[in-house]
Amino acid sequence: MSSTQPLKLTYFGIQGPAEAIRLALAVSKTPFTDELIPGTEWKANKPMNSPWGQLPYLTLPSGEVYGQSDAILRYVGRLTGLLPTDIIEEFKVNELVGFIQQDLRDRKVGRSMSIKDPAEKAAYRAELNDDVLPKMLDSLVEKMDESGFLCLGHLTIADLCLYTFLNWISMGVVDGVDGKALVLGRPKLLGFMENLSGLEGVKEWNEEQRKGKIPIDFRA
Amino acid sequence: MSSTQPLKLTYFGIQGPAEAIRLALAVSKTPFTDELIPGTEWKANKPMNSPWGQLPYLTLPSGEVYGQSDAILRYVGRLTGLLPTDIIEEFKVNELVGFIQQDLRDRKVGRSMSIKDPAEKAAYRAELNDDVLPKMLDSLVEKMDESGFLCLGHLTIADLCLYTFLNWISMGVVDGVDGKALVLGRPKLLGFMENLSGLEGVKEWNEEQRKGKIPIDFRA
Repeated sequence: MSSTQPLKLTYFGIQGPAEAIRLALAVSKTPFTDELIPGTEWKANKPMNSPWGQLPYLTLPSGEVYGQSDAILRYVGRLTGLLPTDIIEEFKVNELVGFIQQDLRDRKVGRSMSIKDPAEKAAYRAELNDDVLPKMLDSLVEKMDESGFLCLGHLTIADLCLYTFLNWISMGVVDGVDGKALVLGRPKLLGFMENLSGLEGVKEWNEEQRKGKIPIDFRA
Repeated sequence: MSSTQPLKLTYFGIQGPAEAIRLALAVSKTPFTDELIPGTEWKANKPMNSPWGQLPYLTLPSGEVYGQSDAILRYVGRLTGLLPTDIIEEFKVNELVGFIQQDLRDRKVGRSMSIKDPAEKAAYRAELNDDVLPKMLDSLVEKMDESGFLCLGHLTIADLCLYTFLNWISMGVVDGVDGKALVLGRPKLLGFMENLSGLEGVKEWNEEQRKGKIPIDFRA
């Protein structure tokens, strides 16, 4: 950093799409300010300093402000080495990030949030839990190596996307989706979650910030 | 390329999320095979060679196969210089790609495709056309410089995302959304579209592959 001001990440006090960014910073011991905006304050004052009328956004030491969670994650990935510079390795990571963030998080689970009709929503969630997510997670497991990470034998931003996604659907907040059972039924995913939760920076972050919530005890 | 086999992009014979990739290859004069799969063949034989059970996917000269359209676009951006290597410039491009692909294309227009109730869908599309898209496009225009490109004064993958998105919503295929009027009402967007359509590789691609469809004559 060319300044004494650390990076500042601004988001609500929930995990959401900011958590993978926070974990990338925490695991790499990059100093940052975790600015938390109460929902009421956001509603009253938005867009505040936000470049796209959205949270999260990142303020650089220079004062420049950037939005878009995946763009922020990639930038932090660059700073911390969690996004490889080799273009084939980067392609592998980006492919996994795309599958997790766009397909799993956004188009499948996220999309179900906007279904208004309760019966339609329940049917969609049942199909998601019983058929769609099992198949998608199986296709992911098939590609995982034996390292305890998704690819390349080491931690990348793709792992942090999967870790936060699986935590999200395993917390019991997405009605009709039992993420805990989906993880528990897949030894490689269970091993992955326990491996990630055991990483020094991740462990410290969870103990300080997510106590009692994360890590989830999948074996309980 | 380390082999005589060019890159091969596999997708349906429509524009969709593959078109920005094709344009990145066309504009940079990178040889590639544009493999087009008939919808009926896909339905009968999927997932064929697809790594995620989806199209598009990219086959490298080495034979390796990768999926996820945004990951492919970034890889092609690396090969062609349309994704900058400077990490702040890359951040600017990724921020714009995120806004266009995730917010505009996926979460707004794309999401409306899955609404089942016709009245709900019509109301959503009306709000999209009259309020949501105008505001979002205005926030994009506000950030554009005077170069005729989105950022950095030259062509990047972000421009190709916006170009293909605006073509899509201006072709009359998204009922209730009049993209043509949205572009025509914003001189900077109109200038952008005409600038992009005039680039040598884009012009040739459209003449050979999209004759009569693209470029759209926004002034007609």
